[in-house]
Amino acid sequence: MFFPIKRALLSVSDKEGIVELAQILHNLGCELISTGGTAKALSDAGLPITDISKVTGNPEAFGGRMKTISFQIESALLFDRDRDAAEAAALNIQPIDLVVCNLYPFAKVLQQGADFDTLVENIDIGGPTMIRAAAKNFKYVAVVTQPTDYAALIQQLSENQGSLSIAFRQQLMAKAFNHTADYDALIATTMSQSVGQNALRLSFEQGETLRYGENSHQKATFYRQTGAKVSLFDLEILHGKQLSFNNILDINGAIQSVRQQNLPTCAIIKHNNPCGLASGINQAAALEWAWAGDPISAFGSIIAFNTTLELSTVEFFALDNADRSKRKFIEVVVAPHITPQALAYLQHHKDLRVVLFNPNSLPATLPDYRFLNGSLLAQDADTVLFDKLDLVTTTPFEVTAHTDLIAFGIHAICQIKSNSIVIVRRHNGYLQLLGMGAGQPNRLVSTRLAIDKCRENLQNEYHGTDFEAYFMEQMQQCILISDAFFPFADNVELAAASGIRCIVQPGGSIRDKSVIECCNTLGVAMVFSGTRHFKH
Amino acid sequence: MFFPIKRALLSVSDKEGIVELAQILHNLGCELISTGGTAKALSDAGLPITDISKVTGNPEAFGGRMKTISFQIESALLFDRDRDAAEAAALNIQPIDLVVCNLYPFAKVLQQGADFDTLVENIDIGGPTMIRAAAKNFKYVAVVTQPTDYAALIQQLSENQGSLSIAFRQQLMAKAFNHTADYDALIATTMSQSVGQNALRLSFEQGETLRYGENSHQKATFYRQTGAKVSLFDLEILHGKQLSFNNILDINGAIQSVRQQNLPTCAIIKHNNPCGLASGINQAAALEWAWAGDPISAFGSIIAFNTTLELSTVEFFALDNADRSKRKFIEVVVAPHITPQALAYLQHHKDLRVVLFNPNSLPATLPDYRFLNGSLLAQDADTVLFDKLDLVTTTPFEVTAHTDLIAFGIHAICQIKSNSIVIVRRHNGYLQLLGMGAGQPNRLVSTRLAIDKCRENLQNEYHGTDFEAYFMEQMQQCILISDAFFPFADNVELAAASGIRCIVQPGGSIRDKSVIECCNTLGVAMVFSGTRHFKH
Repeated sequence: MFFPIKRALLSVSDKEGIVELAQILHNLGCELISTGGTAKALSDAGLPITDISKVTGNPEAFGGRMKTISFQIESALLFDRDRDAAEAAALNIQPIDLVVCNLYPFAKVLQQGADFDTLVENIDIGGPTMIRAAAKNFKYVAVVTQPTDYAALIQQLSENQGSLSIAFRQQLMAKAFNHTADYDALIATTMSQSVGQNALRLSFEQGETLRYGENSHQKATFYRQTGAKVSLFDLEILHGKQLSFNNILDINGAIQSVRQQNLPTCAIIKHNNPCGLASGINQAAALEWAWAGDPISAFGSIIAFNTTLELSTVEFFALDNADRSKRKFIEVVVAPHITPQALAYLQHHKDLRVVLFNPNSLPATLPDYRFLNGSLLAQDADTVLFDKLDLVTTTPFEVTAHTDLIAFGIHAICQIKSNSIVIVRRHNGYLQLLGMGAGQPNRLVSTRLAIDKCRENLQNEYHGTDFEAYFMEQMQQCILISDAFFPFADNVELAAASGIRCIVQPGGSIRDKSVIECCNTLGVAMVFSGTRHFKH
Repeated sequence: MFFPIKRALLSVSDKEGIVELAQILHNLGCELISTGGTAKALSDAGLPITDISKVTGNPEAFGGRMKTISFQIESALLFDRDRDAAEAAALNIQPIDLVVCNLYPFAKVLQQGADFDTLVENIDIGGPTMIRAAAKNFKYVAVVTQPTDYAALIQQLSENQGSLSIAFRQQLMAKAFNHTADYDALIATTMSQSVGQNALRLSFEQGETLRYGENSHQKATFYRQTGAKVSLFDLEILHGKQLSFNNILDINGAIQSVRQQNLPTCAIIKHNNPCGLASGINQAAALEWAWAGDPISAFGSIIAFNTTLELSTVEFFALDNADRSKRKFIEVVVAPHITPQALAYLQHHKDLRVVLFNPNSLPATLPDYRFLNGSLLAQDADTVLFDKLDLVTTTPFEVTAHTDLIAFGIHAICQIKSNSIVIVRRHNGYLQLLGMGAGQPNRLVSTRLAIDKCRENLQNEYHGTDFEAYFMEQMQQCILISDAFFPFADNVELAAASGIRCIVQPGGSIRDKSVIECCNTLGVAMVFSGTRHFKH
């Protein structure tokens, strides 16, 4: 099943590495057939070339539109070396064993904003024909479509004395059809646009079978998006069990929650909502304050950091504590880097997944897709925190002194399922999510959940005798943020009764006026952000 | 920009409609070039044919692998009728103005479970070359790839005296590249599989720009999945404003919530969670009981039905009530059909969207995709309600007498974000979601939310003097269902204190034993379903 490469056709738009490859083929005794610019580059390098016209019997014609397509070339690629040998000989067709071809750079000229005629001229016809013909006949023919594959080709040739195995040729074949599929996918969507049609093609590869999906009766696969410069798929697992479907979903939420924060930040995710989030100068303290946001739910959670994970931080989990009840079990830790000491410590727990991924490597503009029963909702990512921060009450509030805390809170709310309410505070120099309410049909319930969580957390940290006074004093320092406008003043009344003195919301309700009046009456400041953050 | 079709090349794998089309072309004075089976079919019909070999100068060769590919055919398709006219004449190339070609049926043989060699033999090489060459040169050449397009071609030819407009040719071009892209997409994924790689290609079309996405600063588009037999995209809007991104998301949730129910069923969705759900013999009563599940959140909701929507049902919304405060404003109503009377009534509200979609038309097995920052999680839909219904307590419970109510409750929980708890009851012959808790990091909070909602709803329906007695009596009739196992007995204690006497959960915790013991102590029955229903 090994075939020697005796005759190769080289026709490339991207000349990178082609001379080196051709030299190696020549040294192996391989005849080189070539076209136009490729032929010139090889000749200039002193390599003997068979001009394609000699094989086809035709001239290059029509401004280069016709170079390779011919009965002779495609027959040389397509005929069955066993079944059709006599017929080929009678027709004077000599086999071509290798095609090295890359296509007119349609994607590149599109990206450069070329005009329509230039785009059309950059649709390659001869190239895909050769590539597909060679790929179809992979039992006898090898095809390479990208300079990045030359190294593997050269290695295989050198390991096998100038021959290639059927297994390698089959791999190249699969790659070739993926290449032509990608090529036509982009042309198809571009040309659809030219006639006013909006089409979208998404391609995914490297599918890894997961143990199961969201639940054990659902099969699942994790893919990398083809061509994505950065992908969650590239996360690196340093330790622990295989990631589950739900782990991956939560890791994504965790990474989103610590992106684009200036200071060391820690997010704690449970069922895809951040239940803990804190940011400040020290990573260990950020973890401690994030954990304090929901110390019950934090057990079995996914925790992300935006800075190199340190031993002093992970010791918080007490994984080596002789008293097992003191150990804090979590499912996954994600960070951009980790010190060897921190990793060694986390390895105390054999199942705990330690994952490397840099949250700030993700571009801000990745689109968001929702697949719904044979349809797709596509949208831009939600990347604008706020339009403005306008104090709309007569109740005073120094907005500029709290912009960082408001931005921190809105960033949190962007990750929480609607209706969402967060209550954030500045505490010991840290920004902390003190309580949140998520996923409720009724916004008032979310507000109540957030306040209840604050109460619980403040009780945990208070060791004095007058908790109610402490509660009101702390809540007065907090800012309550809503993902969408308040349709009625009831949320304001509930918040005010719990001590809240500042509320941030997008505004835009027909009842804004009565909501603002209620704030003024109750001594609450209200800031309009102008930007809603629904998330479902 | 009109070009007459004087010379056409017909080479089709699917012969449907080809003779009729050829006859019309012939009547218009067009020369017909054809190959193999197509040529035979046309000759048999008495049409004069130019055999392809006459044009190419080559025989059909290599078991049919080489038929059309040649310098002559592709030149005739590709040369620029203006710029290259003299060169074409010198090379004796006569233009071909129309290609009618459909490809070897790779998809069909794949579906039929063909072996690998048959699959490879069904990769068309000549067809895509002709189609792509003709499409590239659409300024002068028309290309048709599917029998379903013949009618439009014939109409255009007859309207334009045997010519085709540039606009039509450009449309055909876009279609042609979509066709070859789809063709290679399927080959690529199949061939990737053959070398142990798992790839996935998704294609979407008919993109409609929405006003905005989840929020007004996000651009959004709604697409139909290419080739989907049934798609949410096909919903029909009978009345009201344009659907928003969030409307479509919620319509999907609403439809999922009323699928596969035997009796008239109504679901009320708010922020993608069903907050009301009821099922019974009368549609109007189903709406009334669904609404009673969360009468506050139901305002501004999306409501779905699984049966023809009747006037007697929609009158519940009181849209024509002189007292505006009595009118129940909702965003969207979805049903498989609607009576003219019901539609006329709903049109009282000019903005209310009335949408037709049959929830039972959706196949049960559509996959679920989650796009996460350059990666994709793919999984089977969650279609299994339960594995078993095993009573695991000594506390007795007649499971078989309540299977319908348990199935109804589990169906609801499948649509609610985790952690989720539902409390369902059989009431006046209807199955009703009386309370639910959604989207909480801590399951105990979901249980509390569900119980609180039950209390509110029971207060609404009770007009007597001993509410607590009524509450406990009603709760004792209810079943509480959890989407996942209870890690501790605390949920059982909370439920039991509120009167709950039956709990259904998947089971599978290491502490199942202590949870069951707690049930037995408190006189609660517990049923294990064996099937978890996380949804995020």
